[in-house]
Amino acid sequence: MMINLNEGVTAAEGFWVSGVSAGLKRSGRKDLALVVSQGPQFVASSVFTTNRFEAAPVGWSRRAMADGTLKAVVLNSGGANACTGEQGRVDAAKMATIVAKGIGCDPMDVGVCSTGLIGTLLPMDKVTAGIYTALENLCPTAGSDAAEAIMTTDNVTKQAAYISAAGWSIGAMAKGAGMLAPALATMLVVITTDAEITVEQADADLLAACRVSFDRADSDGCMSTNDSVILMANGASHITPDPEEFAQGLSQVCISLAKQLIADGEGAEHSISVSVRGAASEDDALEAARSIARSNLFKCAIAGNDPNWGRVLASIGTTTAQFDPDAVDVYFNGVGVFLQGAPGAPRDQVDLTPFDVLVEVDLHAGDIEATIWTNDLTHGYVSENADYPS
Amino acid sequence: MMINLNEGVTAAEGFWVSGVSAGLKRSGRKDLALVVSQGPQFVASSVFTTNRFEAAPVGWSRRAMADGTLKAVVLNSGGANACTGEQGRVDAAKMATIVAKGIGCDPMDVGVCSTGLIGTLLPMDKVTAGIYTALENLCPTAGSDAAEAIMTTDNVTKQAAYISAAGWSIGAMAKGAGMLAPALATMLVVITTDAEITVEQADADLLAACRVSFDRADSDGCMSTNDSVILMANGASHITPDPEEFAQGLSQVCISLAKQLIADGEGAEHSISVSVRGAASEDDALEAARSIARSNLFKCAIAGNDPNWGRVLASIGTTTAQFDPDAVDVYFNGVGVFLQGAPGAPRDQVDLTPFDVLVEVDLHAGDIEATIWTNDLTHGYVSENADYPS
Repeated sequence: MMINLNEGVTAAEGFWVSGVSAGLKRSGRKDLALVVSQGPQFVASSVFTTNRFEAAPVGWSRRAMADGTLKAVVLNSGGANACTGEQGRVDAAKMATIVAKGIGCDPMDVGVCSTGLIGTLLPMDKVTAGIYTALENLCPTAGSDAAEAIMTTDNVTKQAAYISAAGWSIGAMAKGAGMLAPALATMLVVITTDAEITVEQADADLLAACRVSFDRADSDGCMSTNDSVILMANGASHITPDPEEFAQGLSQVCISLAKQLIADGEGAEHSISVSVRGAASEDDALEAARSIARSNLFKCAIAGNDPNWGRVLASIGTTTAQFDPDAVDVYFNGVGVFLQGAPGAPRDQVDLTPFDVLVEVDLHAGDIEATIWTNDLTHGYVSENADYPS
Repeated sequence: MMINLNEGVTAAEGFWVSGVSAGLKRSGRKDLALVVSQGPQFVASSVFTTNRFEAAPVGWSRRAMADGTLKAVVLNSGGANACTGEQGRVDAAKMATIVAKGIGCDPMDVGVCSTGLIGTLLPMDKVTAGIYTALENLCPTAGSDAAEAIMTTDNVTKQAAYISAAGWSIGAMAKGAGMLAPALATMLVVITTDAEITVEQADADLLAACRVSFDRADSDGCMSTNDSVILMANGASHITPDPEEFAQGLSQVCISLAKQLIADGEGAEHSISVSVRGAASEDDALEAARSIARSNLFKCAIAGNDPNWGRVLASIGTTTAQFDPDAVDVYFNGVGVFLQGAPGAPRDQVDLTPFDVLVEVDLHAGDIEATIWTNDLTHGYVSENADYPS
């Protein structure tokens, strides 16, 4: 029916959650979240990073979710538990085991997500105590606490909910900020729903939703070791949703989160939609759009409010997308600055001061369109990533 | 015999050159260069950008050099003459024609190179007058003037010469700074030699030299519309060089220029060699090294003197190179910070304050090694590219 940004994972019925401070962040902020499904169903689906250095919790969750069943997921910020060797794997398993004991289930029904610095072991004494506190604080309304507890360099929480008029809902939370790139941004996403759906439906709809949302968010071209999108469906509404509406609602929630991630990308002063139309195929449109979204020169130009279409052309000139260089159009915020292979309207007709920027390219080679969302490359990005302690 | 950085294109005998101010740069600095071969031979070879939006001068030079013959090349900074449509093509042809008339040859024996802002027509009145001045100022010792006249955001001139004990020489100049990326950096390079070589030799040796030099310089992943490497051989020494020595000397000159380009990359505070060894193939080594060199997060970390090996691993984890994640080693300036898939020496043992940084990765999957040269991503880079007028 509509997207609500004030509610997250507890928008769906029958999910008890918490977000607490385990002392993993030096700031003392919330850093440990727990999402527990009350059933009656425990259907689950997931999409994980394809980075070959997958973090220990990703390896654990991948195995835990292989049977399409999940009862809970525990998430921490303040440490990615990635590239931590055998001890990291032991620690991820321990996190699942403590939660399993607390709620009375099999450890293999508990997912684990971690985010933060790569290459450091988690302080397991703090994590253990934090999980006990999280278990004690579980309640059906703490979605925003959980969303806060998974933040790293995020400035704001990311939540979205789809409330169907039919009586079922989808709720979700995400964290992002840096290492936001292709085939999943660096991010943790937990999506809950009280709709009655099958595992097959969950798998198909989640994959389709990711393809048009997180896969098209490309902040800095860097793919993380910890990316995880987890969907849990408990059927608590006792309603079987219209399949089309459910798939659409799930996509809308994911697109909303993807855009929130990009708008809060590290140092972002502009949120940029790069839309390529007139392409011969979706792959062509995405390749061209991504080449622009990945150009540091283009991204610096936007930071400087400069409609530098030369850098747009130089980017798509490196792709294999079908087009005739003499037939390409480029628009910045609706102004055609390069038309049919030659300079168009003067650059000073373009106003790039608003936060949202739309760059459109027409390849005149077909009728397919696709959009990649990115942000600009600013002094803030350099500061955050030169100074972020490793 | 050795590489000399104080001499450029006039290190080879029989090349008359000049570098003058045509008023294309608002600063009034030199912006037009001319290199004229005195023969007796006019053998030439070239490598151009593969960007599909090739600038008008690139299209001209490609045709002019198709027969392996060139008598002169005219170069300007202060305007790339790229994406300028039909008028741009007319202007490039006119530049060649004026030079041809001045030295008495066919316009199709004159190469043209331009660099500067994309998408603006050259002020042809100033260019024409500048070419006349350049013709008047030709002399056999003005290599440094020419090198200065092709600079854009470069801070220093780039020159290199190989002086053979056998009595022949290779001289060269380059400009770079931004849009420095794969399969040729954004750059103009002119190489002269007085050795007697064949066109076939020139083609084969230049391609081989580019593969191990400019193709391995990757400053910001952006490929330009104007990249040109032009080699002119006039046989003025009347010496036929040892083929092996000539090929080696040419590669050494190109490697020297590539490293000079990277060291002077826009905003560079560190020059970084990313060396991948233990690879199963050269392609694997290059793919892994380039993925690291292209990671903005890695490049920001180096700007912050942070040996952030997590970002190195996250980068190579996205490649298809053969390796076992549990067998990889990472070294920063010789210190093994990640060994056999687990954290190694403490990060504080690494000193990243020197300008030159060496990052080594051992994939333990074979015995092939390759290096990509890049630089860090700094506030200076953002400033130059957010503020560079488009």
